[in-house]
Amino acid sequence: MSTAPASPGAFITFDGPDGSGKTTQIKRLADWLRERGTEPVLLRQPGGTPLGERIRSILLDSRSEQSLGEIAPLTELALMFADRAQSIRQVIQPALAEGKVILCDRYTDSSEAYQGAGRGLGTDRVLAVHRAICDDLQPSLTVLLLPDVDQALKRARRRNERFKQQNNGADENRFEAEGEAFYRRVHDAYTAIAKREPQRVVLIGPGTGDDSIEAIAARVRQVVEQRLVAAGIRV
Amino acid sequence: MSTAPASPGAFITFDGPDGSGKTTQIKRLADWLRERGTEPVLLRQPGGTPLGERIRSILLDSRSEQSLGEIAPLTELALMFADRAQSIRQVIQPALAEGKVILCDRYTDSSEAYQGAGRGLGTDRVLAVHRAICDDLQPSLTVLLLPDVDQALKRARRRNERFKQQNNGADENRFEAEGEAFYRRVHDAYTAIAKREPQRVVLIGPGTGDDSIEAIAARVRQVVEQRLVAAGIRV
Repeated sequence: MSTAPASPGAFITFDGPDGSGKTTQIKRLADWLRERGTEPVLLRQPGGTPLGERIRSILLDSRSEQSLGEIAPLTELALMFADRAQSIRQVIQPALAEGKVILCDRYTDSSEAYQGAGRGLGTDRVLAVHRAICDDLQPSLTVLLLPDVDQALKRARRRNERFKQQNNGADENRFEAEGEAFYRRVHDAYTAIAKREPQRVVLIGPGTGDDSIEAIAARVRQVVEQRLVAAGIRV
Repeated sequence: MSTAPASPGAFITFDGPDGSGKTTQIKRLADWLRERGTEPVLLRQPGGTPLGERIRSILLDSRSEQSLGEIAPLTELALMFADRAQSIRQVIQPALAEGKVILCDRYTDSSEAYQGAGRGLGTDRVLAVHRAICDDLQPSLTVLLLPDVDQALKRARRRNERFKQQNNGADENRFEAEGEAFYRRVHDAYTAIAKREPQRVVLIGPGTGDDSIEAIAARVRQVVEQRLVAAGIRV
């Protein structure tokens, strides 16, 4: 007659550069979980809460800078973490307390890659803010989708060009407007995170197998099932 | 024929609880500086930049929580520092580079007092975020206005009541809605900061002399003049 949840819940994050297929893979995994009777909690960062969506519009809208002036890199970092703190309080903690499975599109690894490496603020600084603002909350599992850097650049560029044609030449978001060197720094930072934390991070990248959407989805399912079972969650 | 500023500039912050008279004293000091030919740069936190004003409206508006849900204490802390980072980049650094005198209404001491002590997030956490997000930028001088805690509570309550009568019972801001224990924690934190950093912080509080507005203004002028002269700034 306990009110404790039947299982401890799982906080699974998906990370990787723009164009790496996170959204597609999260959707596939969510469908698979639903077929097996588990309704996942879906979340994206920035965003995912009413306050977070307001922060997201400031951070990603390339028109923001016309009205607000250039957003300083350290402002960007603090805003990313403000969003994250609100998600933790309003979504992640309650869902874990109910034993749910959370699928989160981006988390602190994104800040380490984009703000830490891309913007040059440094990993130590990003992790210091993570400890302070997120109470160092770590995902149970991170699926890191890391395509070949040249292919990813090509894909992101194509997507942005399509967006520009439909939006009077505006970039899809402030990050899409960055150059190639920025993306290579982001890519290298993700590789370093996977090496540093092999227990938490499962890297699905170039040279790790067939890279069709279906093949990747199957590998994601396999690793998630393994981790959930190990954590005592029935799927 | 150097383009360097004639003087190194000074970053002066005013801090203290709501109702301590910061706004009045900043205005008095600014008038005095102007009479002596120095046009100060005025700044308030949160706020002071277009992005900062947007953050301010989220943080202080007691109606925010009706539309956005409760703002988590760690979200609040991160938003305060996002505002601060933007002020540093857009206002403080450029003004210092031009040798100007900046008068700033609230800075990191406010976060230490309100979020660190008031909300119970702890000083160490606040200072860790300050180091990461503000690159540990310290004011040249902090004027800490710390009235007797019981008098301050009375004054803040009167102001909030007036505001409520004019605004259908809404609190003036989210902080005004807090209780007495919160304010006592804030007050004690300010006292601790003044003890810890006597070089930077000049405490003007109960028992330190005549507490009329004019008497305090005279003491503020005296300490500011002393510091500016010591820093090689002619006033």
